[in-house]
Amino acid sequence: MNNRMKIIRNQSKDSVKNLTKRVLLNNEGLTEKVRDVLLEVKEKGDRALKSYTKQFDGVELESFLVSKEELNEAKNLVDLSLKEAIQLAQSNILKFHNSQINKEKVIETTKGVNCWRKSVPIEKVGLYIPGGSAPLFSTILMLGIPAKLAGCKEIILCTPPNKEGKINPVILYTASLVGVTQIFKVGGAQAVAAMAFGTETIPNVYKVLGPGNQFVTKAKELIQQEGVAIDMPAGPSEVLVIADKTANPEYVAADLLSQAEHGPDSQALLVTVDESLAVKVAEEIEKQLNELPRKEIAKKAIENSFILLLETYDDCLDFSNQYAPEHLIIASDKPEDFSEGIVNAGSVFLGNYSCESAGDYASGTNHTLPTNGFAKNYSGVSLDSFVKKITFQKVTKTGIKNIGNAIELMASAEGLEAHKNAITVRLKDIENV
Amino acid sequence: MNNRMKIIRNQSKDSVKNLTKRVLLNNEGLTEKVRDVLLEVKEKGDRALKSYTKQFDGVELESFLVSKEELNEAKNLVDLSLKEAIQLAQSNILKFHNSQINKEKVIETTKGVNCWRKSVPIEKVGLYIPGGSAPLFSTILMLGIPAKLAGCKEIILCTPPNKEGKINPVILYTASLVGVTQIFKVGGAQAVAAMAFGTETIPNVYKVLGPGNQFVTKAKELIQQEGVAIDMPAGPSEVLVIADKTANPEYVAADLLSQAEHGPDSQALLVTVDESLAVKVAEEIEKQLNELPRKEIAKKAIENSFILLLETYDDCLDFSNQYAPEHLIIASDKPEDFSEGIVNAGSVFLGNYSCESAGDYASGTNHTLPTNGFAKNYSGVSLDSFVKKITFQKVTKTGIKNIGNAIELMASAEGLEAHKNAITVRLKDIENV
Repeated sequence: MNNRMKIIRNQSKDSVKNLTKRVLLNNEGLTEKVRDVLLEVKEKGDRALKSYTKQFDGVELESFLVSKEELNEAKNLVDLSLKEAIQLAQSNILKFHNSQINKEKVIETTKGVNCWRKSVPIEKVGLYIPGGSAPLFSTILMLGIPAKLAGCKEIILCTPPNKEGKINPVILYTASLVGVTQIFKVGGAQAVAAMAFGTETIPNVYKVLGPGNQFVTKAKELIQQEGVAIDMPAGPSEVLVIADKTANPEYVAADLLSQAEHGPDSQALLVTVDESLAVKVAEEIEKQLNELPRKEIAKKAIENSFILLLETYDDCLDFSNQYAPEHLIIASDKPEDFSEGIVNAGSVFLGNYSCESAGDYASGTNHTLPTNGFAKNYSGVSLDSFVKKITFQKVTKTGIKNIGNAIELMASAEGLEAHKNAITVRLKDIENV
Repeated sequence: MNNRMKIIRNQSKDSVKNLTKRVLLNNEGLTEKVRDVLLEVKEKGDRALKSYTKQFDGVELESFLVSKEELNEAKNLVDLSLKEAIQLAQSNILKFHNSQINKEKVIETTKGVNCWRKSVPIEKVGLYIPGGSAPLFSTILMLGIPAKLAGCKEIILCTPPNKEGKINPVILYTASLVGVTQIFKVGGAQAVAAMAFGTETIPNVYKVLGPGNQFVTKAKELIQQEGVAIDMPAGPSEVLVIADKTANPEYVAADLLSQAEHGPDSQALLVTVDESLAVKVAEEIEKQLNELPRKEIAKKAIENSFILLLETYDDCLDFSNQYAPEHLIIASDKPEDFSEGIVNAGSVFLGNYSCESAGDYASGTNHTLPTNGFAKNYSGVSLDSFVKKITFQKVTKTGIKNIGNAIELMASAEGLEAHKNAITVRLKDIENV
């Protein structure tokens, strides 16, 4: 089998545009299946959760709630060096998200008319953390830290148990560290349903965040239609690297592969004008790929991926902006030459030492980012994801005198006489004084 | 027929909680109907738009695009006094939304690791403005001003034509004033579909904003599932007034009625501990209602509304936070006593002179706000609605030295060896120097 990443050259404009399109999974029957799960949980609560957990996770649970004893036990099971690494990441993520706190000024738009916004935490949020072979504790940092910082009162977390009914200790340690208020051993679409509608043991929340498989993703899409907010629509993870001749082929290959190991449907793209770099990166990928424990996954992702040779670096930026990558790496000694032209991307990594892994874990930026081209119209998770901004206004007598007539005229022109009258009754009193 | 607003007293806690629930419309068959419209427009483009415009707006159009001549003509048809009123509103809305521009600092989270966010405009946005008896030009101010300020390149607007194939001149004047780039004579679900998918004449956009009837609202919900962003989920408009003994019953009644005239499904609630105020407001509503041109609409809304008497002002705030009103008026001489306790609301009006009309038109705050309890988890429209915040990071050699080992440990613990390797290949070079 050929592990060589394909190099695409000499394409017409239309073919290049076609390359920005994502490969979509066939979802037949998925909506119906997930809708059934949601209905079951809505109607039967914990009883439905128990039955799904038996069916999908292979375990019968007495209680979904992780106990204090389990949390204490977990703390002792995590290596000190890993704890220190997690705390370093925590500190950086905290610093960056703390800078997103924004005390807004009161603006006097007209004399006597003051307007301002206030960020108020969403009271109850739910975090979903997938199970599977590896414990994705880094996502708990990315969601839990800003939730706590924003001031959310209830921060619950759902994650599937293993066959022994246990949760990986690193998950439990990290959740305690960042201030998650309750952890429940429930996974899949049923967990999303429980957080959206509430059950006897799991409280309902106003917003659900976090990654997951196609069932979880579809469940989030469906609860959104019932008024529960979600972080953003989801798709397979992806990286796009724009590299010039100052890039290091070994680094670029390692970055592409770190994306490729996420899943067989991941995309890892390199766009450049430098043919010799393209060939070297392709060779490096072949070499590094064989060393990876997850090489079977990465191999499939590399088959879905490509290196694209274009004429100019402006063409490279155009392609990237059209593709709107979740992660964009500028592999160059002079990344600033590119950064002004970036219009659509989730998170950008500038320079040869800014690898995606850094942002995935510990630079301080958030790794929950828009995929599938959604970077054209969505932002990644930030402190903003955990607050509503409520507007306030205080209009004094002077204020109403200054803007009242304009409002009367506009309301009349819109045919809304009661709106006008709300001003008129006040103006009459003020003028009578 | 009785125009008296009902006063509800002595309720149990559960009954009070039930009163926070919204009355929902019966939507049977709506999804299927709107889905058909979306499919037709996706497949047949302009041809489908022409056919729907003939069917729903009663006019056959040669071209959907409003011409320069029509725009110039409109300018001359709008009264000077109304133009001046619109410009005053524009100035206030501009000032307030301008204060929302946020130049974020670069944060060095660890020596050699710099992170920042950049607000980048969503390139193409579409505004929907409903037709009907009155021209809702104020909503063009509320959507067009922040879109332009954010720097969106394409700001298109769709609104249905009348039977003569014309658009109200105030709509055209306001759209030109704020910088809308193209105006199209298309309404309903078909307009939303055209903006989402694009047709021969209407460009597709990445986000669709604006109010509409149940067809428009459903169409927005459906395009969101296809990756086009929308402003927020929608429901009938509503106001909640918390009033104390310093409130003026005439003003409170006028404010409740200004909400009631929006539509028969609007809700206008008064919550207070003061029974004599409650009775006076009910009397005032009866009096003022008869004078209104839209009294038939307002009457129906008042039937869906109520005055709720509670024991304490804390109870009033609790009720309001549970209801999460789109508009919250604090009718009191000391509104500050209440404002700290507000957790869920779209926009808040503080004091006896801060009527909802002020915010609807000209105070400077945005009037596109979360309804139906969505103020628990959504913000109203602001400058933020028109940008994505892209994160950037630049990690130097020193930076990788400082955080590299932590990343290696975390990636390993998550079973992601290629993520670890992206660090390792860099650390090895740095250490060899």
